[in-house]
Amino acid sequence: MTIRAVVWGENVHERQNPVVAGIYPDGMHTTIAGALAEDPEIAATTATLQDPEHGLTDARLAATDVLLWWGHAAHGEVRDEVADRVVAHVWSGMGLILLHSAHFAKPFKRLMGTPCGLSWREAGERERIWTVSPNHPIARDVPAQFELEHEEMYGEPFTVPEPLETVFISWFQGGEVFRSGLTYRRGAGNVFYFRPGHETYPTYFDPHVRTVLRNAVRWAHNPAPRIRDVTAAPNVPVEAAPERIEERGPKLHQPGEEGFR
Amino acid sequence: MTIRAVVWGENVHERQNPVVAGIYPDGMHTTIAGALAEDPEIAATTATLQDPEHGLTDARLAATDVLLWWGHAAHGEVRDEVADRVVAHVWSGMGLILLHSAHFAKPFKRLMGTPCGLSWREAGERERIWTVSPNHPIARDVPAQFELEHEEMYGEPFTVPEPLETVFISWFQGGEVFRSGLTYRRGAGNVFYFRPGHETYPTYFDPHVRTVLRNAVRWAHNPAPRIRDVTAAPNVPVEAAPERIEERGPKLHQPGEEGFR
Amino acid sequence: MTIRAVVWGENVHERQNPVVAGIYPDGMHTTIAGALAEDPEIAATTATLQDPEHGLTDARLAATDVLLWWGHAAHGEVRDEVADRVVAHVWSGMGLILLHSAHFAKPFKRLMGTPCGLSWREAGERERIWTVSPNHPIARDVPAQFELEHEEMYGEPFTVPEPLETVFISWFQGGEVFRSGLTYRRGAGNVFYFRPGHETYPTYFDPHVRTVLRNAVRWAHNPAPRIRDVTAAPNVPVEAAPERIEERGPKLHQPGEEGFR
Amino acid sequence: MTIRAVVWGENVHERQNPVVAGIYPDGMHTTIAGALAEDPEIAATTATLQDPEHGLTDARLAATDVLLWWGHAAHGEVRDEVADRVVAHVWSGMGLILLHSAHFAKPFKRLMGTPCGLSWREAGERERIWTVSPNHPIARDVPAQFELEHEEMYGEPFTVPEPLETVFISWFQGGEVFRSGLTYRRGAGNVFYFRPGHETYPTYFDPHVRTVLRNAVRWAHNPAPRIRDVTAAPNVPVEAAPERIEERGPKLHQPGEEGFR
Repeated sequence: MTIRAVVWGENVHERQNPVVAGIYPDGMHTTIAGALAEDPEIAATTATLQDPEHGLTDARLAATDVLLWWGHAAHGEVRDEVADRVVAHVWSGMGLILLHSAHFAKPFKRLMGTPCGLSWREAGERERIWTVSPNHPIARDVPAQFELEHEEMYGEPFTVPEPLETVFISWFQGGEVFRSGLTYRRGAGNVFYFRPGHETYPTYFDPHVRTVLRNAVRWAHNPAPRIRDVTAAPNVPVEAAPERIEERGPKLHQPGEEGFR
Repeated sequence: MTIRAVVWGENVHERQNPVVAGIYPDGMHTTIAGALAEDPEIAATTATLQDPEHGLTDARLAATDVLLWWGHAAHGEVRDEVADRVVAHVWSGMGLILLHSAHFAKPFKRLMGTPCGLSWREAGERERIWTVSPNHPIARDVPAQFELEHEEMYGEPFTVPEPLETVFISWFQGGEVFRSGLTYRRGAGNVFYFRPGHETYPTYFDPHVRTVLRNAVRWAHNPAPRIRDVTAAPNVPVEAAPERIEERGPKLHQPGEEGFR
Repeated sequence: MTIRAVVWGENVHERQNPVVAGIYPDGMHTTIAGALAEDPEIAATTATLQDPEHGLTDARLAATDVLLWWGHAAHGEVRDEVADRVVAHVWSGMGLILLHSAHFAKPFKRLMGTPCGLSWREAGERERIWTVSPNHPIARDVPAQFELEHEEMYGEPFTVPEPLETVFISWFQGGEVFRSGLTYRRGAGNVFYFRPGHETYPTYFDPHVRTVLRNAVRWAHNPAPRIRDVTAAPNVPVEAAPERIEERGPKLHQPGEEGFR
Repeated sequence: MTIRAVVWGENVHERQNPVVAGIYPDGMHTTIAGALAEDPEIAATTATLQDPEHGLTDARLAATDVLLWWGHAAHGEVRDEVADRVVAHVWSGMGLILLHSAHFAKPFKRLMGTPCGLSWREAGERERIWTVSPNHPIARDVPAQFELEHEEMYGEPFTVPEPLETVFISWFQGGEVFRSGLTYRRGAGNVFYFRPGHETYPTYFDPHVRTVLRNAVRWAHNPAPRIRDVTAAPNVPVEAAPERIEERGPKLHQPGEEGFR
């Protein structure tokens, strides 16, 4: 079985900032897709903000098992209908992995229902990522802790809902902590937020980070058929009730009428 | 200490449908506020869709400890900026209680990040509500189970995120089940969804339902001062880091610059 | 990859009660193992209370990916050290699936830390099991709802901790509801409780029940190597601290000394 | 309303170790009770390991709203029946707050169902405690972060179940992180684990720690009447079923017979 992953990259700083371009000359999305491709059961492609419909047509999303999302400078340029489309595909079963500054990406904020804020500092300090849930599938082959010598700091409070599971927590040299790996389910879709990945450092070349990315794709993959009409609110008429009942009392709705939304 | 509760009612069917008008001649919101007023520590007022800004100005919400929301026919008429305003106040600490068909209310859907769908049947059948979490504050003085002889059926799957706690589950005569009392936290705000309350039945006169409403207001009340700037993402400059560190490596941001959103 | 499942059966009523013996002449564990064997990637064997060490030696558990447990009349006869052994293997990564009356099994009560009580009635009434989390791996190929025409009733409150996820909820003809499919993680072990399976009815021949059992085995399987020394509380001496620090202040412990337990 | 709190102290190192005796000449439990007494609505008393029945008779626990527990050197000396008694009172509604090395206390391990292990280092290093859930009742009047200049390090993985809520996370000078404030519900009882409090440092004189202790007592207090027979599994005879049903099919149990345990 092959898992079809799409790495979505904003692809702005790679083209505008010489430091970022130096680290990721083909774009961060390409490097991330390369990490995934080390797993022979993952087929990774890429899409960017600049593509028509940001590369995320309904047909493409329908053929995507897991979407990875990296964005930072251009959250506001992501079109609302594309963000909503991504959200709807998550509800119906597509996995979604949010990377680093994607904490403020439109699809993440819409799926969380919270501000998704945090504190931050760009000082190239050391981050140490601790595995809080040993043997979690996302932590497979990841050591008890590993270090990224240069990273941007993200600090608590991270204003997200209480997660299903906390997989990683980061320690920062400057004194902060952050819940760096959090799982959620939204509808039939598995959602994972993973903190590291500031664009001025070579984080996505780190072997442990790359292992986490592959693990997360496997974890987020829901092999069940996508749910159709995931926003439906079906009426069950009296004659279709599992138990035989008699209709009684006053009614608002006429037979066959749709509910209000 | 007095808890300031506002009962928001859509107030449409009470004016347009003779059955509903007969049960709730002063509007459902008035009946619900009356249930709250039986607790001398709750000061309940009302607001409706028809009020300017739906009765939910920023000043009013800032002076509201807990907002209760009943809506059904006119979800789409709630202005987006008012829905967003409610959501922001929840994040900063206002309690929110969603009643019955408010599962499709804009603030609830935005706070949940899921479709919030369900199946339904309007047949006046019997609902029996079971207390799943005995001694939960919301279940105080509520029996192990109680019946509503006539209610609309709501059936699973209820497409909401896994709750913090499941307090009530309903049994329906026609054969369905539903998680009828669910708690969430979103930011500093406590959120409770409570299922019963179809407008063609006198549900909000039921003494157990009224007890749950009062309990829920007390539970949802967060006495801490409202969080300001709940959507902030503050930069922590190097010189303000809790531990002394040296800035190093390449940077995107200039000193004092705001982060991207 | 083959998943090694062991079905543990108490094997008491099958030998003593003619009704149960008539339905399950080879024991319930054998029927359950047969359901698992329909998945070619599951290798299912059985163990019973009457076996030496109840068939659950440390070596056997170490070679077990997922243990299924059915018990009822003889919970008290399960030896404490075997129950503790099962618990320790769950902590280190073995999956555990508790069936029906195993809500009172020693390993389950020890893993939950709660009474695990419920109400019950043996009246051969109809149970209807609703899938609450569509597309959950445990609900794969399970319909939106299915019926068991004759089952024992279990009613809420089910005094267990709030689960990771609620997968199934049951409706009973006599008016009760029950959370019938609940997931937990305890250490590295995945735990699933599944309600149906009273011994005087042919529940384990029901195709949907059998599908759930197979799905649950796949879900509960943690392919990571078992954690060794899962109850360890390792000292990290100063010289092994990830960051260089100086020891300072008064101490209780001498270098190399173990912690208190 | 007065909340009746009992601070249970092991009271071993205070009498045997001159450093500890110097900091806590009247015992740590006395200092902790003093912190609680700063809230006029908390009536705090103490109990110790050396008291008859460890000071925790059934009558005393029945008159206790919230029990705080500090133990370290003598976990093994706590009698099993007293530990089970504490657990049963938590199930029926008593709050329980576990302090520091009480992560290995018998009642906590029995309530969690997990090893409750961690890594540790006694080096007098700096701990910084971050508030992860701002405006949580337990974080009332607690700053965004506060420091303890000398503390024992506790490091992840902390092998406990996924909590209801993560309220605090600690940063350690030596490079580790730890989830320092975790909430659980077990039956009707609220449970809070709070990390700081090594006996060779004056942690319980820290004003922020003392604020957390008082907040936690208020949060853990469940004013509902204690549940009786919390381990019951009541039979509901056919004639008492909420809905009228006919008994049918084979049965194991005679009328009026108790269930198996």
